[in-house]
Amino acid sequence: MVRHYEDFAVGESWTFGTRRVTADEIQDFARKYDPQSMHVDSEAASEGPFEGLIASGWHTAALSTRLLVDGLFEDAAGRGGLGVDDLEWRTPLRPGDELTVDVEVVNTEPFDDDRGQVDLAVRTTTQEDDEVLSMVVKGLFARRNDGH
Amino acid sequence: MVRHYEDFAVGESWTFGTRRVTADEIQDFARKYDPQSMHVDSEAASEGPFEGLIASGWHTAALSTRLLVDGLFEDAAGRGGLGVDDLEWRTPLRPGDELTVDVEVVNTEPFDDDRGQVDLAVRTTTQEDDEVLSMVVKGLFARRNDGH
Repeated sequence: MVRHYEDFAVGESWTFGTRRVTADEIQDFARKYDPQSMHVDSEAASEGPFEGLIASGWHTAALSTRLLVDGLFEDAAGRGGLGVDDLEWRTPLRPGDELTVDVEVVNTEPFDDDRGQVDLAVRTTTQEDDEVLSMVVKGLFARRNDGH
Repeated sequence: MVRHYEDFAVGESWTFGTRRVTADEIQDFARKYDPQSMHVDSEAASEGPFEGLIASGWHTAALSTRLLVDGLFEDAAGRGGLGVDDLEWRTPLRPGDELTVDVEVVNTEPFDDDRGQVDLAVRTTTQEDDEVLSMVVKGLFARRNDGH
């Protein structure tokens, strides 16, 4: 069964993971999208204020999204995202960390005739329960009467 | 000269780009981080509600970040990001689009003895001036008295 807008209920929640992150992966992402030394240069990073390599915050968001897609969106009639509120990077993500994502539906409302908006509070933590990301993603999903 | 917290002034603005995006790149990113059919499967996407492949919103954010890093952060004493407010994906990013990023300093305030917070309003547009992303990034930068 494909999950539509009508199948999301406020208060519903899920936990997805885990996903382990490597130094190589952190550096690969950052070389393409965020080549600051704290993300790409292990040696410089170990001398720097974070005392070691840390992931780009956008990499943390991308990894959280992957867990969300595999766990929830894969079988849903997703119609893209409107945006994100209150994104916070509280603790840096480091090589070897293992990510878990907790998701809760915090709001649902009709968007237009074909689509509904579902707001998901996302919280990504490490094996030490350090919070590396929190945000509210505003997604669109097809309504059951959608032609597509 | 390395740009520190004290060197950012509210109202200061820059424009960076352009950066052209390919279908291959859109699919590569999405296969790793956001493997929904609208981002990875050209054929399914052309039959879908967006009538063609569109980039993951996180890819749009990552590409915007790259322009920001190359243009502004490369010579700055960046100390990581606190988070992001009001991220909106208004128009989908599509293969062949060419991105420009407009950035403006909207707030600066001390964070602690070593670091200051700089809020940057970011607006990413295509060659048609369609807005594919807007957000406020809350970054930290070293103060001039920082020991690092």
